[in-house]
Amino acid sequence: MAVIEFWFEFSSPYAYFAAQEIDALAARHGRTVVWRPFMLGASFKRTGMGPLLHMPMRGDYARRDWERIARMTGTPYRLPAAFPFPALVPSRAFYWLDDRDPELARRFAKRVFHAFFAEGVEPSTPEVVAGLAADVGGDRGAVIAAVNDPAIKERLKAETEGALDRNIFGSPFTIVDGEPFWGFDRLPMVEEWLRRGGW
Amino acid sequence: MAVIEFWFEFSSPYAYFAAQEIDALAARHGRTVVWRPFMLGASFKRTGMGPLLHMPMRGDYARRDWERIARMTGTPYRLPAAFPFPALVPSRAFYWLDDRDPELARRFAKRVFHAFFAEGVEPSTPEVVAGLAADVGGDRGAVIAAVNDPAIKERLKAETEGALDRNIFGSPFTIVDGEPFWGFDRLPMVEEWLRRGGW
Repeated sequence: MAVIEFWFEFSSPYAYFAAQEIDALAARHGRTVVWRPFMLGASFKRTGMGPLLHMPMRGDYARRDWERIARMTGTPYRLPAAFPFPALVPSRAFYWLDDRDPELARRFAKRVFHAFFAEGVEPSTPEVVAGLAADVGGDRGAVIAAVNDPAIKERLKAETEGALDRNIFGSPFTIVDGEPFWGFDRLPMVEEWLRRGGW
Repeated sequence: MAVIEFWFEFSSPYAYFAAQEIDALAARHGRTVVWRPFMLGASFKRTGMGPLLHMPMRGDYARRDWERIARMTGTPYRLPAAFPFPALVPSRAFYWLDDRDPELARRFAKRVFHAFFAEGVEPSTPEVVAGLAADVGGDRGAVIAAVNDPAIKERLKAETEGALDRNIFGSPFTIVDGEPFWGFDRLPMVEEWLRRGGW
């Protein structure tokens, strides 16, 4: 069975909430998930969208909606005052880890999400990010070196461009057998798609 | 138990799909629904948003998403080439009917949705709209006169302004006990809210 692609931006609350559920959802249908961070800001240039909290009315709604989802799902959550954060460094670290050990990279991604959305730690510097990688079994020094490597910078750029070229323009963005699903609130539809085998 | 408010724009496919479900959803929890059309375009000036199909990437996604929802739910649907349509006239007719017979107004709203999204009939002129009202038991001549009445024009304007002042900025937009839910894909969360009595 084909893997499910889970595209996300590290500073997206909706991605954080989806990240709590996507692996278990896939497993219920015998599927596995490939995690793929990208830089959502790059899509704003193409879609004309912008950060949610900067949008009149929609920003206030989003803030309330995130708190409501956290309470509904029992997910630890407190939006840091400095939001969104620049997610370049953890996104680069992810791909470096992923090339070596996808399971480690997935644990790292969950650790990054939790640090920002539950602990108020901004995972934006090589030192902080490498510390989070070490928390889940990564090599601190190697991660610090990796995120400054031009090759991994190019890698993230290429992944982001590739995502945009496939019309992946939101976070989270789940692809099942070529079918795109945008948003946390589409996970029930993703599950229905898996249950029925499409329609 | 307090009524549920169901705000919508007549030319919104997501509202059309939600309109198929909202009354039954509410009834499962002993609630009734007050239907409230408004002019979504008026909110675009405040939110900086615009018609979905004009947005790069998001437009193509929306078109695919609407067809997918129609297939999933078994709802008759074919997006007319002329989309969106100017919904001033049916929105005015709705309020005129609603003041006299809310049940008739609700049947009329469903008739308007079906005409556009299932039959390819654009319900934008007084004659067509009055014919749709007559289909569900309305008085054709009275509706034609009503939609040209300055009082009902002002009424729709006031309802739309009132909605925007309450931060109702999307379609459909469901309000349950003061709690706002934006979108067709939030109906499962609306149901969960009703089931739990909030959280």
